[in-house]
Amino acid sequence: MPETKILGVVLTPLREIPTPDGAVLHMLRADDPDFTQFGECYFSEVYPGKVKAWKMHEHQEQNLSVPVGKIRLVMYDARPASATYKQMEIIELGRPENYCKIRIPSGIWYGFKGISAQTALIVNCADKAHDPTDNKKIPAEDAEINYTW
Amino acid sequence: MPETKILGVVLTPLREIPTPDGAVLHMLRADDPDFTQFGECYFSEVYPGKVKAWKMHEHQEQNLSVPVGKIRLVMYDARPASATYKQMEIIELGRPENYCKIRIPSGIWYGFKGISAQTALIVNCADKAHDPTDNKKIPAEDAEINYTW
Repeated sequence: MPETKILGVVLTPLREIPTPDGAVLHMLRADDPDFTQFGECYFSEVYPGKVKAWKMHEHQEQNLSVPVGKIRLVMYDARPASATYKQMEIIELGRPENYCKIRIPSGIWYGFKGISAQTALIVNCADKAHDPTDNKKIPAEDAEINYTW
Repeated sequence: MPETKILGVVLTPLREIPTPDGAVLHMLRADDPDFTQFGECYFSEVYPGKVKAWKMHEHQEQNLSVPVGKIRLVMYDARPASATYKQMEIIELGRPENYCKIRIPSGIWYGFKGISAQTALIVNCADKAHDPTDNKKIPAEDAEINYTW
C-alpha cells in the first residue's frame, strides 16, 4: 500500500470479502472514524488508455474507490499555503493489490488514466453534492502541471 | 421503465452522461427529494448465472443501482400489514435500458441473479450502516417463496 505525501490525502485500505457468487466490497460507513458528511455518490468510467484530467474543487472533498478495473491517479498540490505545495503524487488504484479509499481534499488538481484491459469504474462518495460553480478544469497537457499522461 | 407493484418500492431512472473517455453515472444526492439518510455505501459483485438470495432487513433500507453488468432482482413482500403482502416483483437492472435506482424498504425478501456475460456490480447506498443483527437470510430455494432461480 503506497504512502501518501500530499498533505490531507488519506489512503485507507478497504475490505474485500470473497464469496463463491461474487465479492462484497466495503467503501464508506457513516460511523467510520474519518467520515465527515455525505453529499453525493456517483460513478465515473474510464476506458482503457483514456485520461480524465485535470479537475479541482474549491469546496468539495472526494472519497474515491475503484471496484472495477485499475486506474493511475495523479494529484498535484495547488494550495500555496500547504506544506506540500507543488508536490505531485501518483497512485495506482484497483483490486486486488490496491483496493482502498482515497480522500482528496479541495485545492488539489487530480486526474485519472485507465490502465486495465477492462473499463475502470471509479465510485465517488463526495462530501457535497455536485455544484457546477465549484468545478475547475484545465486540459490534461496544461503547462501548469509537469506531467505527461 | 417497469412500474413497481410492491408498496414502498421506488424505481427512479438515473442519468448517464456519455463522454469519449467513459460515462459519468448518477446515483444519489443528499438533496434528492427522496433522500433520507446515509448509512453505508458498499458493493456486491454477482458472477454470471450466480444467485445471491434471499436477504431481508428489519430496519435497513436499500438504495441500489447497477453500473456494471445486468441483474435480475426479485422481491417478495413479507410484511403482513402491507397492502401488497405476499406479492412478488421481478425487475431487470442494468445499462443502458434500465439504469436506475431502486429503493427496497425493510421487510422485503430480495435476491439477485447475474444475467450478463460480465460480472455485475451492485452499488448499495443503505440508510443505515451494516448491522449483523439486522440481517436475515433464507436459502435461494426456500419454500416460503414460490420462485425458481
